[in-house]
Amino acid sequence: MQRLQSGRHFLQIPGPTNVPDRILRAIERPTIDHRGPEFKGLGFEVLEGIKEIFQTKQPVIIYPASGTGAWEAALVNTLSPGDRVLMYDTGHFSSTWHKLATKLGLDAELLLGNWREGAKPEAIEQALSEDENRAIQAVCVVHNDTATGITSDIPAIRNAINRAGHPALFLVDTISSLGSMDYRHDEWGVDVTVGGSQKGLMLPPGLSFNAISKKALAASSEAKLPRSYWDWQDMLNVNKQGVFPYTPATNLLYGLRESIRMLLEEGLDQVFSRHHRLAEATRTAVQAWGLELNAINPSEYSNSLTAVVLPPGHDADAFRKGVLECFNVSLGSGLGRLNGKVFRIGHLGDFNEPMLLGTLGAIEMGLDLAEIPHLPEGVRAAMSNLVENKR
Amino acid sequence: MQRLQSGRHFLQIPGPTNVPDRILRAIERPTIDHRGPEFKGLGFEVLEGIKEIFQTKQPVIIYPASGTGAWEAALVNTLSPGDRVLMYDTGHFSSTWHKLATKLGLDAELLLGNWREGAKPEAIEQALSEDENRAIQAVCVVHNDTATGITSDIPAIRNAINRAGHPALFLVDTISSLGSMDYRHDEWGVDVTVGGSQKGLMLPPGLSFNAISKKALAASSEAKLPRSYWDWQDMLNVNKQGVFPYTPATNLLYGLRESIRMLLEEGLDQVFSRHHRLAEATRTAVQAWGLELNAINPSEYSNSLTAVVLPPGHDADAFRKGVLECFNVSLGSGLGRLNGKVFRIGHLGDFNEPMLLGTLGAIEMGLDLAEIPHLPEGVRAAMSNLVENKR
Repeated sequence: MQRLQSGRHFLQIPGPTNVPDRILRAIERPTIDHRGPEFKGLGFEVLEGIKEIFQTKQPVIIYPASGTGAWEAALVNTLSPGDRVLMYDTGHFSSTWHKLATKLGLDAELLLGNWREGAKPEAIEQALSEDENRAIQAVCVVHNDTATGITSDIPAIRNAINRAGHPALFLVDTISSLGSMDYRHDEWGVDVTVGGSQKGLMLPPGLSFNAISKKALAASSEAKLPRSYWDWQDMLNVNKQGVFPYTPATNLLYGLRESIRMLLEEGLDQVFSRHHRLAEATRTAVQAWGLELNAINPSEYSNSLTAVVLPPGHDADAFRKGVLECFNVSLGSGLGRLNGKVFRIGHLGDFNEPMLLGTLGAIEMGLDLAEIPHLPEGVRAAMSNLVENKR
Repeated sequence: MQRLQSGRHFLQIPGPTNVPDRILRAIERPTIDHRGPEFKGLGFEVLEGIKEIFQTKQPVIIYPASGTGAWEAALVNTLSPGDRVLMYDTGHFSSTWHKLATKLGLDAELLLGNWREGAKPEAIEQALSEDENRAIQAVCVVHNDTATGITSDIPAIRNAINRAGHPALFLVDTISSLGSMDYRHDEWGVDVTVGGSQKGLMLPPGLSFNAISKKALAASSEAKLPRSYWDWQDMLNVNKQGVFPYTPATNLLYGLRESIRMLLEEGLDQVFSRHHRLAEATRTAVQAWGLELNAINPSEYSNSLTAVVLPPGHDADAFRKGVLECFNVSLGSGLGRLNGKVFRIGHLGDFNEPMLLGTLGAIEMGLDLAEIPHLPEGVRAAMSNLVENKR
């Protein structure tokens, strides 16, 4: 067990994120009858409101499940056993989605990447152009890979699919970008967008989402993978009445209502620019320490998290353990092949300048204590950057 | 919208049930890192503690999903496409489970019942005996059908399967009986038990369970239905470390820890006898009103809910609406073919004598206001019954 910790815990993993008190207070309200008259007001508000967050006019399905469930839902509603699926390996989460697809009986191909750059539109275009029989039924890309801190250019990939003239569906995971970075389901021509509650939406884990296009909905009537819990049609039929086909996670829906209200009160543009500003300050600190960002291309830097590479010979997990024990700050571990080599700073959700500076200060002190070679002025550099951007 | 309501709402549907303040306070704590050191204490405590509630020494899988998901999990982990499954129609929920099985591609047969009696062991024994090729892979029964208020005799059905000498797996839904009525996964020889959070466990909806036998676990290695989110093996592999393969519903796990502590502090025997006592008083009131219980056989009366049949010509939903609007008490509707004819009183979970009397009082007044023929002394009879049982 860890030592007794005083003060507020800093949950700076890249999700679950710090849940604001306003949402915790909403969630702790007593559960209500999900078939009663009061529920429908809640149901309609979240079903309508969540569309604004996905920037879509199409329906968004809300599941009582964590994000992995919404991955599965996106596949089983649109595909049939043995269907070919093209996925792009931007990091641990894209490769986990690939494993899931394989387990469901899909013929899923993973275009390999180096985990330091985003999905390459030209590689996807080429793979689709070579698919002369149009056997590939879906292209799956993670917008923001939570393991690597890399954002892929979704509109550019949509254009690549269009240039190949390929009819495949376009499935995108926005679990760690929704509500933190600009994401436009309709305008970007995405067929299924997968989201989760515990990142930019500032909620505890336990809700996940499928935003769907008309094309995806049409595909679902032909899709043969067995499904019941995840079935869109059952959901859409009864969502019209503001209710759900089986028992929803009512208390998390209270939280979702509050989350949507908070995001719309701040305004999505302001939410995105706040995330950009805090992410820039984080990267400024990392570079001032003389440490390496895992992401290579500035255009692909994630605004919701930053993955930092430690110098060879230093154990990132031991470093993280020290920061947690000494300063009560949780940082994210390196996942998969990055384990032990990388740590991740989550700077998304209900987050502001002093929270960031506290986090960066703990990291800077942790680097000192762990005797990891670095320059001392990271926090100072972040502050200068923040002040500069305020002017 | 309903009128402004003062006072505490009485959530007397048969689940979700009234969530005690102690659990609401636990749930509203800030979310923590599900990969950090603090989480494991929580993970180990709930994974061990939940076994006591199912009365099993085998593992219990905890899903971030509502009960319908755990139904699906029980099937996809143990069965292959086209497998024959024998189910028994005790009410709306058994028929819904049957629809789910069919959607998953199973060859599911539903032994028809009249929705007023439990599953008949002799009918199951006969069906299994006639299955000479042993094609039936699983027998599925709902222990307590939430729609009809009828409890089936699980040990008697286990004996029937044994008498037929049939190797089928035995799958039981205990969603509305767990933590309210005696249920023994190991002793009763059940292979998969399906549970949910929002009934006797007194939690909001959003967690569900599969308790599994060694035989079920062995079957899962041969089962061919595609699965990933629901996969037991992935769960079991990492549950050993007190963690979960994907993001768990952390805040609901806080609540589950508190729920298990509360149930074990009271003692399961006391929990069950309290439910029995309050259920008896409820039935006494219904009979004193001169109304009809949906359940025919006293040995099959449910101790978690009571379904009441209204006299012909009276609309149960209009009656329920009046009770909610006038007295702030939610009652359960009749489901499926019982719609409009039956209302249901939930008397499970965090519930006591004064809560029951408030509920029965609202019903008695509602019967008056709706001019539904009845005798006036239901609440009085319930009180006499409760006092008698206290002596």
